[in-house]
Parts: sequence; C-alpha cells; structure tokens
Amino acid sequence: MAARPQIDELRDAARVLARLRAERPRVHVLTNFVAMNVSANALLALGAVPSMTFRAETVADFLASARALVVNLGMLDAEREAALGQAVPAAGRLGLPWVLDPVKVERSGPRRDLALRLLRHKPSVLRCNLAEIEALAGIAGEAGARHLAREHGCVVALTGAIDILTDGERVVRLAGGSPLMDRVTAMGCAASAVTGAFLAVERDALRAAVAALACFSAAGGVAAGRARGPGSFEVELLDALYALDERQIMEEVQPA
Amino acid sequence: MAARPQIDELRDAARVLARLRAERPRVHVLTNFVAMNVSANALLALGAVPSMTFRAETVADFLASARALVVNLGMLDAEREAALGQAVPAAGRLGLPWVLDPVKVERSGPRRDLALRLLRHKPSVLRCNLAEIEALAGIAGEAGARHLAREHGCVVALTGAIDILTDGERVVRLAGGSPLMDRVTAMGCAASAVTGAFLAVERDALRAAVAALACFSAAGGVAAGRARGPGSFEVELLDALYALDERQIMEEVQPA
Amino acid sequence: MAARPQIDELRDAARVLARLRAERPRVHVLTNFVAMNVSANALLALGAVPSMTFRAETVADFLASARALVVNLGMLDAEREAALGQAVPAAGRLGLPWVLDPVKVERSGPRRDLALRLLRHKPSVLRCNLAEIEALAGIAGEAGARHLAREHGCVVALTGAIDILTDGERVVRLAGGSPLMDRVTAMGCAASAVTGAFLAVERDALRAAVAALACFSAAGGVAAGRARGPGSFEVELLDALYALDERQIMEEVQPA
Repeated sequence: MAARPQIDELRDAARVLARLRAERPRVHVLTNFVAMNVSANALLALGAVPSMTFRAETVADFLASARALVVNLGMLDAEREAALGQAVPAAGRLGLPWVLDPVKVERSGPRRDLALRLLRHKPSVLRCNLAEIEALAGIAGEAGARHLAREHGCVVALTGAIDILTDGERVVRLAGGSPLMDRVTAMGCAASAVTGAFLAVERDALRAAVAALACFSAAGGVAAGRARGPGSFEVELLDALYALDERQIMEEVQPA
Repeated sequence: MAARPQIDELRDAARVLARLRAERPRVHVLTNFVAMNVSANALLALGAVPSMTFRAETVADFLASARALVVNLGMLDAEREAALGQAVPAAGRLGLPWVLDPVKVERSGPRRDLALRLLRHKPSVLRCNLAEIEALAGIAGEAGARHLAREHGCVVALTGAIDILTDGERVVRLAGGSPLMDRVTAMGCAASAVTGAFLAVERDALRAAVAALACFSAAGGVAAGRARGPGSFEVELLDALYALDERQIMEEVQPA
Repeated sequence: MAARPQIDELRDAARVLARLRAERPRVHVLTNFVAMNVSANALLALGAVPSMTFRAETVADFLASARALVVNLGMLDAEREAALGQAVPAAGRLGLPWVLDPVKVERSGPRRDLALRLLRHKPSVLRCNLAEIEALAGIAGEAGARHLAREHGCVVALTGAIDILTDGERVVRLAGGSPLMDRVTAMGCAASAVTGAFLAVERDALRAAVAALACFSAAGGVAAGRARGPGSFEVELLDALYALDERQIMEEVQPA
C-alpha cells in the first residue's frame, strides 16, 4: 500500500499534539538511568505526566493509573528487568499501548534475546536505530523494519537521519532533526518516551508514532537553529517541545 | 496562634541563606534517580555539599559527617529502601534534622504505608504536595497539613501555587515561583533537598523550611523571568539559586 | 626527571583531541547515578561513544567492543560493585586502558579498602582530588600522588585549582578551569570519563591524562567566560568541549 501524502501526516501530528496537551496523559516509563531525567523532562515539556518507578511490587499500581507504558532496555539492571516482566503482561491485561526500545541489542546477546521475547508480547511500537533493527531482524534497514512489523504485528519506528515508520504495509518517511541529536545522550530514549505519550492519546499506533517523531524532529530542528553545541541543544530542545506549533512542524520536517 | 508578619519571614530567609553559604553544610540525600542530578546541583548552587550514596553499609559513614538527611520515596528500589531503614534511625541517634518527601504516595499503597511508618520517626519537615497530603492525612489541604504536623510533631511544608508551612499551630503562606516548575521534573524533590540544607544551619524547623521554600520560589521567579521554556528554566533556576539576594527574595515571594 | 616544557603538553593535547574526534572510540563507563548523564554528554560532545551498563552479566559483552574502561566508586551499589569485579579483570585480559576514580574514599572505610584493592589491578590512571589522595596514600598532595604512582605503576591525576599529573617520575602541573566547577555536581567524574576517552586513542597514559585534563580545563575556562552561574556553566561546558580548538587550549590552560 502506498504511503499517504506526507503533508497530511504533519498536519495530523499537530492535531495529536494538541490532544496530548489537553489531556495530559500519565505515562509510565521503565528506562535507563542516563535517560530518566531528560525523558521525564521531554514528557513534561509536552504536557504528559511521567512516572518511572521500576520496583516490581509497585509497577502494577502505577500502571493502573497510567495510559501508556514505555520499556527501554538500556543499562538493564536486575531490578528493572524484574519490573518489566511484571509491567509488560500488566499492560496487556489493562489494554495499555506500549513502546519497546531495544537499546544496544547489537552489543549484548542476552539483551537481544530478551528483546525478542518481549516482541512476542506485541508492543504497539518498536522504536530503534539501524544497528538494533539489524540485530533483531537479521535484515538491514527498511526491509528489516517491515519484516519485524509484520512478524510481530507492531509499528516499527526506525530513527536516523531519515525516520522510517511502518506497520508492515504502510511506510512513512520523515526527514528532519539535527546531527546534534547524536551528540546528546538518550535522545533516542527520549523519542521513545515521547512516543508513549502520543500513543496514550491516539490508538492508531502508526499515526501516534508518526506524530511523535514528527514533533520530536521538529523540536530538534528548532533547537539546532538556536544552539551553539550539544549542551545548549538539549536545553533548546525542551523549550522547543514546550512551545512547538503546527507551522514549526511543517517547516522543520520534510517527506523523504 | 496568628501567623507572624510575612515580611519578617522573608528577611529571615535571606539571613539563613547567608549562613548556609558561609557554613557550606554537608547534606546526605537519599533520593530518586530522576532527581539526583538536579538536587545535587541545587544544593551546590546554594553552597551546600551533597552526598547521595544509598548503600545500606555505607550510609552510616556518610551520615556521621553530614549535618542533615533528606529521604525521598520516589522510585524507591529495594536497595534504597534498605538504606533509609538504616539512615532514619541513625539520623535520630546522631540528632540530625531530616526531611521526608513522600513522592506519589497517592499512587501506591505500599509506599503510603512506608511513609506513614517513617512519619513515626518524626522528620523535622514533611515536604509534599496536595495529593500526597491527602493520601497521608485523609484530610485535604491546609487542614490535612495541620493535622499531620500535630500528630507527628513535625513541620509540614505543602507546596503548590501557594506554599503552606505549618508546625500545627503557626501557619505561613508564601506565593511565588512559576508554573514552569510543574514542567520540569523533580522540582519538588529539589525543594526537599534544599530544605535539608537550610535545616542543617537553622534548627527551628519552621524557620528553616520557610527560608528554604522562600529562596527556592524566589529563584524560580527570577528564572521564569529569564526562561523561554522548561529547558532554560532549569538552567536559570540553578543560576538564580547561586546568585540569589535579599532583594530578589522580597520581590519574588509574597505573603498569601 | 624535570617536567617537559608545558607548551608542548598543550600542543600535544590538541593533537590527541583531534585523534579522539576522528576515531570516535567506544568507552565503557561504570559510574555513579549523579554523574551518568553529564559524563555521557561530555564524552559525546568530544566525539567518543559511551556505554554505561553495570549488569555483571552484560559488562563483558560491552567491554569486548570498547577501547577503554572507566571505574568510578561514587554511590557504589551492590550491583555495580559486582560489575566492576567482572570489568576490571576483563579489561586486564583485553589489554584495555582504564581509569579509577575513588570518589569520596575519605568518607567511607569500606570504599577506601575497595579502592586500594582495585589499585592492585593497575589502572592506567587514578583520577582523584586532594582528600582522596590523602585517604589512599596516607601522604598529602603531590608527594602522595607520586607515592601512589610509583607504588601502583599508574599515572595519578590529582585535580584541583591546579591539576598535578605524575607517573611517579615526571610531573606536569596545569592551571585553568573555573571555581564554578566546584558548584556543578560530577565535574570530577566527568573529567575521569573524558580521561578514559583520551586513553582509548593514546596509550602513553601520562600524555593521555594531560591531554584530557588540559581539554577539560580549557573547556571549563571557555564556559566560565560565558556563564552566569552553575546552571549555564554546565551547558556552556558541553558546548565548549564540542567546539574546543588548539587556540583555546593554549589560552585557557597555563603551566603551573
């Protein structure tokens, strides 16, 4: 099936963003220690309300009042691994959409195996980069993304210089952002957290993921225009997420 | 008993701040992973010296050379829970003032139970928000704060658009800060950490807590005047804490 | 043996920095929770690629594709202690250079004992401050640094108002940086992480450590000239590390 005209995706992104800001959904994020602070701040800047506890005994309580779950495998310690073992099935029972971010699975066999087991629980969105998709699919690039999307019935959001999003049939490609994003830690993790917030207010997972990454890239483009380096880029990114408008999304993100 | 004239509270805040800057007290902070970095930076900006280890075996060593303890229940993992089980009684034995921040107790029954057990150890200050006070007291707002303060012999510092501080008899209300504080993660946690630093140099817990929150709100007001969004707000807040003076406290914080 | 002329050290620092930017080495950093984000960002700003997992089972996988290891003892929890027990011998087997940062050993006996045990594994560089060197060597200041360097066959990098670097024979002293560095958390930890990146591309450990601290101090000097307080200082430091050039190194760092 052919991609829909990209201009509609971007107008739609602004609409979903407006809903996110109005509804202020709670999102539970199980993420790595490097990414926690900036992920929480990205969510708050957009208007979502993050919680992040990774104690197995308390995760279910937090999920019960959340509208989406984000599972990030970076720096996975034993306690967080136990928590996600509770959280992922709980999200399934509660009907919560969830995002899987299989951080650096190309560098650790056990982590790759865990990611493959989690994929069987059908995340709404798998957000990853080129190295990760190849480690999981055994196929590189967009073909790997389509393969994983079909096999697991999820949306794959492959981020890089061009973001590629697919549900296995439809494919959306977005160009935007900034090379400075590679010089700030946890930008991919923050993009995954933000995707969770968009899923909380938009149940069409492809629409939600496209809106999330369009907004994140647009904010990155705005920030790059104001920043002097990676330190000021992160500050400007949070300011840009807070104030992002439809015009900026249309200007900063291009069909690709 | 009637509240004292607020103008005196604010002049007093500047005096306690000057003492904090001169004495540079060590403060041990057991806090959540999202809040650690910004809490440490807020303390350092004011002139205090933070330590944050949450290993049960080493906490006593660190407390022995600290002048206050801060216990924050956000994202409470098993290891930090064990550490605070050592730290709170140790603070009692050492006569150290301590702050309890019962983060998100309204969302988790076990965490609420833990907070209630810790209250029996008589924190110097309980710093919390509206949802937390209601979960702990079973009574909303200022009445809940007064109830908890009387029941546990502590100062309750209830922060929000207006900060309400009470020892159960006296009540001080402060208006200030910025709505941007709700768009940056761990601002309440940082306020609790800062309260620990003020307690280290001022043993009247109500005076210490009023001074701490007046300074934090004033810095927030200064920062809001300079910031473009939540990213620059956090940066400006740390700069403002570093350079805060009596004039800014008087201008940015109002009796309420 | 007399110190070499300092001007050569600084020119050399710019050359090693150029190599770091070209080679983009992977560095595995086992550090404390407060330092993780800023350490990762300092490495990325310079062009290195950090990983930080502290799970004992996965550390070996990450080290196998890394070019240096950094071990920081701040906030040492049980899981990270187990991980470094795996990582340090693995670095030895792989021939990886490594940095030991014995954070706050003067405040905890068990942590001091651990640092002394780790020194027997011969780190390439021990990076510490005055209080830590005295706790480890039993001798204060530069004499303590020389003693430890000789005893353990490592380079000691003692940072403070003046940085003193020695392999036990040669001594290099650098003045630079900014007093604002003491008002931002984890600046020493970030300097240790950066030292790991320089070791990855320069096997002469004294040259690598001198280059690392010269660059870090120079960036600090540049940042201090642009900052209004500790919040903006950290932002400017990352921007300065990203854009640092030879002229700035020569201007901001002086022989001492």
